[in-house]
Amino acid sequence: MSEEIKNEEIIEEEVVEEVSEVAEETTGATTEKTDLELAQEKADDFENKYLRAHAEMQNIQRRASEERQTLQRYRSQDLAKKILPSLDNLERALAVEGLTDDVKKGIEMVQDSLLQALKEEGVEEVETTTFDPNLHMAVQTLPADDDNPADTIAQVFQKGYKLHERLLRPAMVVVYN
Amino acid sequence: MSEEIKNEEIIEEEVVEEVSEVAEETTGATTEKTDLELAQEKADDFENKYLRAHAEMQNIQRRASEERQTLQRYRSQDLAKKILPSLDNLERALAVEGLTDDVKKGIEMVQDSLLQALKEEGVEEVETTTFDPNLHMAVQTLPADDDNPADTIAQVFQKGYKLHERLLRPAMVVVYN
Repeated sequence: MSEEIKNEEIIEEEVVEEVSEVAEETTGATTEKTDLELAQEKADDFENKYLRAHAEMQNIQRRASEERQTLQRYRSQDLAKKILPSLDNLERALAVEGLTDDVKKGIEMVQDSLLQALKEEGVEEVETTTFDPNLHMAVQTLPADDDNPADTIAQVFQKGYKLHERLLRPAMVVVYN
Repeated sequence: MSEEIKNEEIIEEEVVEEVSEVAEETTGATTEKTDLELAQEKADDFENKYLRAHAEMQNIQRRASEERQTLQRYRSQDLAKKILPSLDNLERALAVEGLTDDVKKGIEMVQDSLLQALKEEGVEEVETTTFDPNLHMAVQTLPADDDNPADTIAQVFQKGYKLHERLLRPAMVVVYN
């Protein structure tokens, strides 16, 4: 802060009365007049900038944290999806006639360990009791009757899977309607 | 901004000389003196806060971006690790005597599709040419000779896997030394 400005401020009380009339005509003083105004404007400006930056920072942190949680929660989605055909193949292998007990046991072990690995990551089979278009794809329909009311699932062609609440693939089903 | 302060600033040039001597003794003027100083201090203070907040914001964004990339790159790590025992079981199943061609083909299909899924996520088998303690675990050693120099791998008991440059598990090997 310049010495000039300090002096100017200090003398205010003594001289403010006698100069009040000439003040408006003193155009050369405009620069001095704006020193305080400018400082206050600058202070206000940076206060606003600071507050905005601070709020934005919190938003960024919040968004980053949410994003991190989502990434963590669904991190296994791609690999899990790619593993599903292997599960289908294992089921088909188990359906082959004339498997020895050893081979059957071996295939079941692989199947169990895959299902267990997927389960630990949040992957579950889609339930197939009542038809739900969000979870099932009807590849065939049968006429509903008294024993089999509409939306009852008659048969599952291929199992569906979901990761937490996200569908990895729908179950392929035959449904009464 | 008060009228008083405006006047004070305007008259600076006219009176600054005659009041310079009394300025230091005029204690009552201290409040006025600090108006501009306070405003400038406040401006400096918020400018610093703003600059710090801005720099911190960029750091947070950079760190969040790096973290996101790492999470993406290694997202399949846990599921991949859990799938490795299934691959072991498939290899053991294929080694069983007297498999029919159909069963063998079925098991190989599962094996291929699992390996393909893992490969697409960045998982690869650990190479087993020369012994590397970062990639291999020596479960047994054989005496090295002219045909088999030290650090040559004699046999692989269990395959090792890595996800990009991260080791998921070491290969279990027999090594000459």
